Amino acid sequence: MAASAPRVAVIGVGLIGGSVALAARARIEAHVVGWDPLEGAAAVACTQSAGSIAEAVADAELVVIASPLDAIAGVIAEVVRYAPEHAVITDVGSAKQAIVASTDDVRFIGGHPLAGAEDSGVAHAREDLFAGATWYLTPTTGTEGVRLERLTRFITGIGARPQAIEPEKHDRLTAAVSHLPHVLANLLVEGAMAEPASAGPSFRDATRVAGANPSLWSAIYVANSDALIDEIDRIVARLGEVRGLVAAEDRAGLADWQQQAAASRARLDEALTGEEIEEVRVTVPNRPGVLAELALKLGGAGINIHDLSLAPSLDRSKGEVAVWVATGHVKKARRLMAEVVAG
Amino acid sequence: MAASAPRVAVIGVGLIGGSVALAARARIEAHVVGWDPLEGAAAVACTQSAGSIAEAVADAELVVIASPLDAIAGVIAEVVRYAPEHAVITDVGSAKQAIVASTDDVRFIGGHPLAGAEDSGVAHAREDLFAGATWYLTPTTGTEGVRLERLTRFITGIGARPQAIEPEKHDRLTAAVSHLPHVLANLLVEGAMAEPASAGPSFRDATRVAGANPSLWSAIYVANSDALIDEIDRIVARLGEVRGLVAAEDRAGLADWQQQAAASRARLDEALTGEEIEEVRVTVPNRPGVLAELALKLGGAGINIHDLSLAPSLDRSKGEVAVWVATGHVKKARRLMAEVVAG
Repeated sequence: MAASAPRVAVIGVGLIGGSVALAARARIEAHVVGWDPLEGAAAVACTQSAGSIAEAVADAELVVIASPLDAIAGVIAEVVRYAPEHAVITDVGSAKQAIVASTDDVRFIGGHPLAGAEDSGVAHAREDLFAGATWYLTPTTGTEGVRLERLTRFITGIGARPQAIEPEKHDRLTAAVSHLPHVLANLLVEGAMAEPASAGPSFRDATRVAGANPSLWSAIYVANSDALIDEIDRIVARLGEVRGLVAAEDRAGLADWQQQAAASRARLDEALTGEEIEEVRVTVPNRPGVLAELALKLGGAGINIHDLSLAPSLDRSKGEVAVWVATGHVKKARRLMAEVVAG
Repeated sequence: MAASAPRVAVIGVGLIGGSVALAARARIEAHVVGWDPLEGAAAVACTQSAGSIAEAVADAELVVIASPLDAIAGVIAEVVRYAPEHAVITDVGSAKQAIVASTDDVRFIGGHPLAGAEDSGVAHAREDLFAGATWYLTPTTGTEGVRLERLTRFITGIGARPQAIEPEKHDRLTAAVSHLPHVLANLLVEGAMAEPASAGPSFRDATRVAGANPSLWSAIYVANSDALIDEIDRIVARLGEVRGLVAAEDRAGLADWQQQAAASRARLDEALTGEEIEEVRVTVPNRPGVLAELALKLGGAGINIHDLSLAPSLDRSKGEVAVWVATGHVKKARRLMAEVVAG
């Protein structure tokens, strides 16, 4: 361990926490202290195991809480008691409103990596689990730029792509792209197993997440119940409309609808494809929350931040922000950032 | 071409027809004559191109109709006029009731391979498209054993696994494992694109089929409208029940449900996994339709037929049927086949 190695604490060393630890050690040579209620789990992926949360976070510059979703708020309450004043504390919970609302500690910035695997547990942890994955962050206007910068750097350092987002919007989007798909996968499998059936590879793809970790997923459905219910209501309403087209044998209407889905799919593919990145710089007034505001503005336009740096001016009245975004987003990012500076 | 090469005609040489042609040439050294309304398409995949359907089928032992779904009934009507008396005629349409009802020609046995690809057209045809895939067949009690045997042999010869099924049941199952998943994939993509979103790999899997070939899929939805509407109604009802569990924040109920989905998924995986096969023999009375009855009985129990042969006794009063099925299905297959023999 180099003397300057970043000091990271990981609380909850399962698939996600373990992968964070492995990635931090392999990619940014961090010294990772881990704690998990399951004895021996931290040792699998971390540089060092701690006997308690207090011990794990005592010297940390960054604390990543990767406990089960319904335990996270409780763990945050404990971490903020023992973590150093200069630390950044984040979590990986897949529903954000309740967690973000549970603390007003300025060191905490919520997070959620869009990565996972069919298997859970530290035995399946991998240092490349987050490579290229979107990692949502929920800074607020109370978030200090220097902490957001450090967290963003860490996340790009372990291979992921930070994207700032409001907690409400996060939960709505996540219900649409993750929680509802899990519900539908379960129901598809139910329907297929009503009698012995054969199914092609596309069915296998569509139902890959069916029956995922019951304890984890029942907690997720409940933690994001409002947004999930909205998504269920939306799809039920749309199913009624599609049923109408099918019942009317409206081939033209169905073909149009199918064509629109193809166009949406193509835009989605584009958004998910690897891309060239470019730097955009802007000078910002040194007022509280300006970096968070900037990150949220870009995130709100669907622009991933591939990297971010903040250099304060000598008199600290201003700062220069450099943001790396996809080449295709440069013009838009420049305009949005100018808007933030103009206030 | 060997003098004894099987003579196959393929009508409609796109992705599926082209793959049938390539597989038949590569795997059973067939002489394949193709016809397609698009000039030049047949030449890409077939041994020989014909100028008309009549010319293509004139010498065929087996005719495979791989035209667009809504054209198949019309093509069958033309093929039966020109195909030899001894030929077997089949199709690959993904909805079977209307097609099977459209003809009472004894040479016709409906079919449907559970294989496809994101791209259509003969340029994407592959000789291994059907490797290991279930291929549904819809023999009726009017189907002669010798024709069903020849068709079964052909299908196993090109690498797929025949499974006999009644047309109604086929359409119900296909609505559940294919048509409804396509509808849901479209609606998921719609929901995700309502605003700029990021999505993980599981969303990509769940929506892989969104917006598939609009002309083809609008025809499929309409051709199988009754079963698709039933499936939409089923999933809407179940979504209402799941919504109730979520609204009640019933974690235990949701975890139970998730667990059931996991069990169903495991059974499905098992059914889709490669397996050891074994031969089961039975002597059957030589009455019309007995082989079709036997194949349907096995198919009804979810048992794929990996191979099948029929050897009539010298006085033709009986026949010996050998069926190859998965080792795990041998006992059940033996019992079901005994039931058919007992009448």
